[in-house]
Order: sequence, then structure tokens, then C-alpha cells
Amino acid sequence: MISLAGSIDDLQHVVAELFVVRASGHASDSQRNYPLWELSNKELKRLLEEGVGGVILYGGTATELQHRCKTILNWAAKPLLLCADIEEGLGQRFDGGTWLVPPIALGQIFSIEPEKAIKLAEKYGSCIGDQARRCGLNWVLAPVCDVNSDPLNPVINVRAWGEDPETVSTLIQAFQRGLELQGVLSCAKHFPGHGDTRVDSHLQLPRLDHDLNRLKEIEFIPFQAAISARVSSVMTGHLLLKKLDSQYPATLSETLITQLLRQELDFDGLVVTDALVMEAISKTYGSAEAAVLAFAAGADLILMPEKPEEAIKALCSALLEGRIPKQRLEESIHRRRNALAKVKESFLVLHDKDFLTSGIELESSEDRAFAYELVSNSLQTVNAGSVKAIRQGVNLLRVDDVFSSSILTNNSPAICLPEQYGYKTILCHPRGVSPWQEDQQFPLALDRLGEVPILLQLFIRGNPFRGSSHLKEPWVAAIEQLQSKNLLAGLVVYGSPYLWAELLKVLEASIPAGYSPGQMPESQTQTLSSLFSPLDGPSDLQKSRLQEFT
Amino acid sequence: MISLAGSIDDLQHVVAELFVVRASGHASDSQRNYPLWELSNKELKRLLEEGVGGVILYGGTATELQHRCKTILNWAAKPLLLCADIEEGLGQRFDGGTWLVPPIALGQIFSIEPEKAIKLAEKYGSCIGDQARRCGLNWVLAPVCDVNSDPLNPVINVRAWGEDPETVSTLIQAFQRGLELQGVLSCAKHFPGHGDTRVDSHLQLPRLDHDLNRLKEIEFIPFQAAISARVSSVMTGHLLLKKLDSQYPATLSETLITQLLRQELDFDGLVVTDALVMEAISKTYGSAEAAVLAFAAGADLILMPEKPEEAIKALCSALLEGRIPKQRLEESIHRRRNALAKVKESFLVLHDKDFLTSGIELESSEDRAFAYELVSNSLQTVNAGSVKAIRQGVNLLRVDDVFSSSILTNNSPAICLPEQYGYKTILCHPRGVSPWQEDQQFPLALDRLGEVPILLQLFIRGNPFRGSSHLKEPWVAAIEQLQSKNLLAGLVVYGSPYLWAELLKVLEASIPAGYSPGQMPESQTQTLSSLFSPLDGPSDLQKSRLQEFT
Repeated sequence: MISLAGSIDDLQHVVAELFVVRASGHASDSQRNYPLWELSNKELKRLLEEGVGGVILYGGTATELQHRCKTILNWAAKPLLLCADIEEGLGQRFDGGTWLVPPIALGQIFSIEPEKAIKLAEKYGSCIGDQARRCGLNWVLAPVCDVNSDPLNPVINVRAWGEDPETVSTLIQAFQRGLELQGVLSCAKHFPGHGDTRVDSHLQLPRLDHDLNRLKEIEFIPFQAAISARVSSVMTGHLLLKKLDSQYPATLSETLITQLLRQELDFDGLVVTDALVMEAISKTYGSAEAAVLAFAAGADLILMPEKPEEAIKALCSALLEGRIPKQRLEESIHRRRNALAKVKESFLVLHDKDFLTSGIELESSEDRAFAYELVSNSLQTVNAGSVKAIRQGVNLLRVDDVFSSSILTNNSPAICLPEQYGYKTILCHPRGVSPWQEDQQFPLALDRLGEVPILLQLFIRGNPFRGSSHLKEPWVAAIEQLQSKNLLAGLVVYGSPYLWAELLKVLEASIPAGYSPGQMPESQTQTLSSLFSPLDGPSDLQKSRLQEFT
Repeated sequence: MISLAGSIDDLQHVVAELFVVRASGHASDSQRNYPLWELSNKELKRLLEEGVGGVILYGGTATELQHRCKTILNWAAKPLLLCADIEEGLGQRFDGGTWLVPPIALGQIFSIEPEKAIKLAEKYGSCIGDQARRCGLNWVLAPVCDVNSDPLNPVINVRAWGEDPETVSTLIQAFQRGLELQGVLSCAKHFPGHGDTRVDSHLQLPRLDHDLNRLKEIEFIPFQAAISARVSSVMTGHLLLKKLDSQYPATLSETLITQLLRQELDFDGLVVTDALVMEAISKTYGSAEAAVLAFAAGADLILMPEKPEEAIKALCSALLEGRIPKQRLEESIHRRRNALAKVKESFLVLHDKDFLTSGIELESSEDRAFAYELVSNSLQTVNAGSVKAIRQGVNLLRVDDVFSSSILTNNSPAICLPEQYGYKTILCHPRGVSPWQEDQQFPLALDRLGEVPILLQLFIRGNPFRGSSHLKEPWVAAIEQLQSKNLLAGLVVYGSPYLWAELLKVLEASIPAGYSPGQMPESQTQTLSSLFSPLDGPSDLQKSRLQEFT
């Protein structure tokens, strides 16, 4: 029993347990990728000492992550929820982990070979759970249970397991089995469903017209599947369902959380908010107000408020003043401790055996083979093997951000392979010199690129924070322009299946083209290897480079 | 006593001690930045088990490096030489370590305040030695003892401590004191002196016309200073001194190593070759031949042969066949073991106390203050405080490589600070869309950049492998072009003092301009903060960003 009669410090210590704050996976403050959002070590240590019960980690390598989890546990001196947003494999966020194709690939496979897709989805969960646990995490913020019913959805898109509720339900159940078998907690997100929006809740609040019947027909189904498979937690979305609660977005809505998720869908696990720093919430509600509203609405855990200490104090006041019944605090504390008890084993692994020093790599050859298999099962090509080596060509690569990703480096297959065939790399990204001119019919400024054959590689997918900026780029017209001049040597799309489908419509029949749902090196290697014709007598350099990629 | 009568395996095990192989500082093979040059874990482990006695590490973070050193020592099961090329601070190669201005900055300070420069140089060595030791390294491949007597030197340049032998001698002695006080070994390089070349030995063999008198007047002086200060090792350069040895470059030359370095300069410490994979050697000599020649010439340690096992076998054969006297092997083994004995303490530190898990950051506030002090002491500005916020400007950033450096990220001051003042970033780099047009007088294609005020930031310095590619870019003409149109908002040069001096000649008196010898974030922050006028009422975002930078 928690007493409200004790000191305010004692209450704050208990309430703090329900907060999950954000930290970098790197050891030093100077290494943080997002210093505005990631606590400094000093702040983090203080909050942990004050009782904060969870940390979400971003950035750093797998080795650093493991170190970091140890440091954080030492600072807290008690069990913690340690989580990360590794929907597509540990390697999506932490170099050295395995990076898998996005879930939509499994939805695509499911439509052809459902049994195979189910097996792959279970292995997908197992691969993530295993690596997460070995690095010290005990809570994976997946599966995404949103049904991507709008191809223009800017933020879910390829992160969804499918475009219909049955596909998503079947695959997320398999994923969840694999994940939880590894001794880590799961999280179904983003309740009641972020799949049918054209607005990214990182940037503003999406408003949905759906009524309860529609939700029951589509959006709820995967969440029900997750709940019946005993998912550990559900994350609320920052979504305004105006027909159900005209005032509050789901994260702050008693109707959505308590009446629908808890009562109607009968979920008794942990409810966690999506990050409160996201602009859908933070534009309207301060940290304190948002935390109190979310908790009053029925959430157990408060994720990433901008000012955690203010939010903790505000929640304590609301409890002391009786605005929120004490019983709610007891329930949430109980749910959190229950969840932690389930994953107690994972801490032993971390303390017991230091896999990195022992020289056992995090990523096993089975993991690598699995990543390979997923790419090869979701690869699409047209006119495979027909791109030949030429004397002078351009490899035009379009990426969102030349800095912040592990997608491209000087060793990336998307750069090295075309260079072996005579295609010189030119990067096109929002912070580079523009390749565009003011001509709707001929938008590519070819004088800036060279009037030579161009291999076009587009890294485009829905991504949080990016909005739909790529939709403003006239790639259809650019492809038509290159074709009209006989300068399109080939086309590759990494990511969006919708863009791929759209571009295929205008592509001439003879053009070699390829698509992978993934953007990571494995997708690059397999897609390009399929498109290029074998080289005669590669040099030693080429051979050893090729070796690297296989 | 080493017996040549034992098994060939025993001999190979002893000979292998004299080899230093290259590995990534990352834990996983897939994370290697240079997979062609960095051994896979499997190869590395095998070579260590076969007796290889040293590893040079590149890439990874400070946390990973520490882990990596432990793993490598576990694999070897005996003391090793663990080294890195961290001439400008651990942070130059390993994120999370301190990154200092290049040594030329201290040479500049020395010309004005010699006593201060000497103190700073000693602290410079101490900062590097301390962080290296705490990460598990015991041998720092510094100081550079080359006298940068040619401003167009493509590879030494700002890495040198000065442009005259006295400055270099004084400062490297101070550096060496600081370094060795921390319990790590030092390395004077690149004997007999790489300062007067316009050829980068990473790409081809530099040929020098100097005779012995010239060497004694200039190049030898810093090496003599290093030797008299008891430097632990000397690294040979891949340089052909044709008047002294018309056949062999210094690395393979008995005249240079045995007659001059050992006998004339009386050096009895470790002689290590520069990396044998460098094209100055590898274009002409295979691994086996180069290793045997270098050892026969008098080198003790063989660094980075492309094929270490072939090189080890070849050296064994040469010993067994009597082409190299057995005594040479004994001398070299003895010198290596002596050197290792001096740094035995450093292993204790690594095993004893895990500084990262304990929550003590590698970089102390003293280290940060020192890095700040070095930048502020070597900063040059013209018309400070006069760049004002505008509605629409361009921040044109020129970098060698947008991928491979920690110089620029989305959080870099060189990007974030100008954006606060209305200057939108456009990156210009060899793999981007070109900003150049075919017009010698007006080379910048302003239609690609926007006809708006341009803040020009040039990251240009001598760098291994880059040759002098920047010399082909017409920055003088570009500056004149922008000035003729009243579009030059400001100029910053990070790196080369020679380029800075050249551009100052054409700069109009009213243009704000700044120079730092460093390229790291600290140099960016201080240079730009000096040039910009204070903002009225910065936003919260700006305030917290500015906080990050101080």
C-alpha cells in the first residue's frame, strides 16, 4: 500500500517510477545526437536518484548501449524499464545490431505465402528480443499495430505490418511471440490506430473522423489481437478522434484509454503515452498538464515529458489534492512492477556475461542470414542483370539526410557497386546544391549532373519528422525527362512501395529497375547485384569489396 | 636467448611479436570503416593467437575502443603494443575523446608567447596520454617531428608543430614529457622528415633531393631533440632520399635506419615502419619483400603489411637462411619487451577500473577547458561581431567528405549557428551536385545557390589520401566574384593557415572573416560566435542550443 500521508519526497519517489525519460546511448554528453531532447548525464543521474523508473535510449553503437544500460542501472540502484524504438531491429538505432527490412515487407510476403510470413515475423521478433536483451534493454517499443490504410501516411507507412487488419493481426501476434520468448516486454502502438492519417503527430495533431464502428472494423482489430496474445503494454497515439472525444487526443482521453482500451478491449497491462515532447501534444499542453491529464485518463507510464521534474511534481499535487484517486497510482505502480518482474531474468544476463568482451559478436551468422533472407524475399526487379559497366555515368542518389543515418557511408554498396561499373556518385539531399531547375517538364538540371547515363537511386519512405517532403520532388517528371533523352540507366527505390508502384507506371519496358522495402546496406547489395550484369574479371579491389557485401 | 633450432612454429611465434596489424575500434566486422584494411575478428583473433605483438586501432567511439582493447588482450593472452594515430587527441579518431586543435596552432602561439606554447604542448601530450591509457592504449603514434617547410605539403601541413626546426624541437619535447608522464609510449615520426614534400606517401613515393648536410641543418634536429628526450620509438617515412640511398626509401634503407638513425643519431629505442600498405611502398614491394627489407635495414616493428602471415613467414625464412643475422631478431625482441615493460602499469588501469561503467566520463571538464583554451588562443578574426541576422542567406560549407568525419553533423555549430541568423546550409563536397560553372572569372554558379548573401565556410587542410584536390577549387576567384556582387557575408577558414593567408589578400576590408587551425565543433563555435553579432532575445531553442556549445 502506498501512503499519501508520508513525506512529499516519498510520494515523489513513488510517482517518479511511472516516468520514462530519454537519454542518448552514447557515454558522453558531447556525443548526444539530440542534445535538446536527451538529458545530460548529470540530469539523468539526478532523475534516476529521484526515482525515475524508465529510460528510453537513442543513438550509439550496440557496445555503447550495453555499457550505457549498465551505467544507468548503477545510477538507479533498482530495476528499471529500459526501452528503445527498435521496430526494425537493434541495428536500426544502434550500429552493430542487426538491421531488418521494415515490417511492410512481411505484409507483402504474407499476401503470397502466409505461412512463411508468419514464421519470418516470429523470427523477426526473436532476433530483436535477443539482441535487445543482450544489450541490457528489457522493453521493445514494438509491434506497430497500425493498419496502413493510406499510402500517403507520412509517418507509419512501411513501419506497418500490412494494409488490412487481418494481415497486421496475424503478423504482430507472431512477432510478439518471438519477442517475448526472449524475455523482453512488448508494446502495441499507437492506440487507437495511426494508420489512416496524412499528418505526422511529431509535427502536429492528426484529426480523425472515425466513429466507434469504423474503429471496431479496422483499427481495433490488431490491438485486440495483441491483447489476446498478452501484449505487455499499449502505447497511445496523439490522435484526435473527434467523434469519440471532441476535446482530448487519445493520449489524454479517458474515453479512449479507460472506456475503450481498458473496459471495451479489456486490457489490463501497462498503458504508456507516446512521447509528450511531440508537437501534437507539446504545442498545446505543457509537461505538467499533459502528464496529469494522461494519467487521469488512465495511462500508467508517462513517456518523455519535456520537463520531467515539473511533470512529476504536478502529478503528486493532483494526487494529494484528490483530483486523481490514490487507487490509480497503486494500480499503475502495481502494473509496472508486475511487468518488471516478468523480465527479471534479463538483468542477470547483462550482469552475468559480458558478451562483447568475451569476443562473441552481438550479431550472429544466423542473424545475418535472416536479414539476407528477408531482403531476398521482398526484393522486386525488372530487367535484372542488364545494367552494364560503362565509361562514364552518374549514380544519382537521393537521401533525406546525408548526416544522420547509417544508410550511406563511403563503403555503402549503393556507392561502391555503381562506381565499379563506371557510375560516379552524386548525392542529392535537402542540404546540398539543388539538382532541380524551374521547368516542370524537364525538372532535372542535367548541366549540373552531366549529360551521361544516370542510375537513379531513391531512398524514400515515410519517416517521423520528415513530413512528406519527398512528395514535392518531381521524380515522375524526372524519370520521363531522362527517358526522353535515353539517359536513364536504371532506377532503384528503397523504401516506399507506393512510390515504386507509381514510378513503375511511367517506366519504359526496357529500363532495369529494382525495389527493396529496406534502405540498409543489405538491401542495397542485393538490389544492385540483381540489376548489374556480372563484371568480367573484377580487380582485386572489386573482389574483396564484393566479398564484404556478401 | 632465442633459438633458431626449435620448431618453425616457435620461431614464427617469436617473429610475429614484431608485427603490428590493423583493426577497427568497433566490435563487429560489419561496423568497420575500412574493411579492406581492417582485419575481420576471425583473422585478428587467429593472428593474435599466432603471436602477433601489436595492434593499431582506427574508428569507433571511446567506449568501443576500451571494450575493444579488452577483447584484443583477452584474445592475445599476453601484453601487446596497442596504438593509435591520435596526434590531435583521442577525439580525432574516437568519438567521446577530446579533440584538440592541430599542432601547428601551438607553433603559431610559440612565435608570440613561447613559454605559454611550451606549457600548452606539455598539457597537449598529457591530455592525449591520459585518455589513451584509460581506453587501453599504451602507445601513441605522435609527435610528428616533421618540419613543415613547404606550405603546399599535402599530408603533413597542420599536423606539424612548426615551420622551423627549433620550434618543432622545443614543442615536441614538451609534448613528449606530457605524454610519457601518463605512462604511454611515444613515437617520433616520420624519419628522416616528411615536411618538405609535395607528394603524399599514402598515394606515391616522395623523392627528396636533400643531402646529409641539409638533413642535419633542418630535418634531423627535431628527431635529435626527441631522442635526447628519450622518445620510445621512431617511425620511418616512405621517402626516397636519393642522395643517401638511390635504391630504397627510408623505411627499407639500411643507410637511413642503421647508419643514420641508429649510429649517427644514436637511437636505441624501437624503430617502427610507417604502414606498409601505403602506396609509396605497396606499389613496388609486396608484403613479404617489404617486411624483410625493412627488418634487414634495421627496423624493429613492421606496421600494417597487407598480408601479415606472408610477411611473418618471409621474415622467418630470411632468419633461418641466415640472410638476416639472428642477433637482429634478438635485439628487436629485446627492444619491444623493454618498451612494454615501461608501460606495464597501463594494463592495470584498464583491468582494474572500468571508468565508463563507473559513470566517470572520459573527457573531464579540465579537458574541455583545455580544448577551449587552445582554440581561443589560436583564433584569428577580422571585423568580429559584425555578421547580423538576415531574412535569407546561404551558409555555403565546403568539406572534403560529407560522410567520413565527425566535423559536420546536423548539430554542428557550423550549421546550427548560421541557421539561427537566417543562413540556410548548402553543402559543397566532391560527391554533391557541383556549385561550379565554366567561367574562370565567375566560377560559382549562383543560380544554384540563390543570389543572396553567402557566408562561406571552408574546411580545408592537408589530409592523408586527399592529395591537394582543394587547390583545384577556385576559392580566390569565388571570393572576388561574391565581393563584386556584394554577396559575401563572411568568410571562415578551418584548417590551413596558408589558404587563410592567401584569401586574406583578396578580402575587402569590410568583410567579417575568421580562421581556426581546427575543424572540430569547438573551433566552429568559437569562430562563428566571434563573427556574429549578439542576437536580440534568442528563442528557447536558440538558448539551449547555445548552451550546448559552451
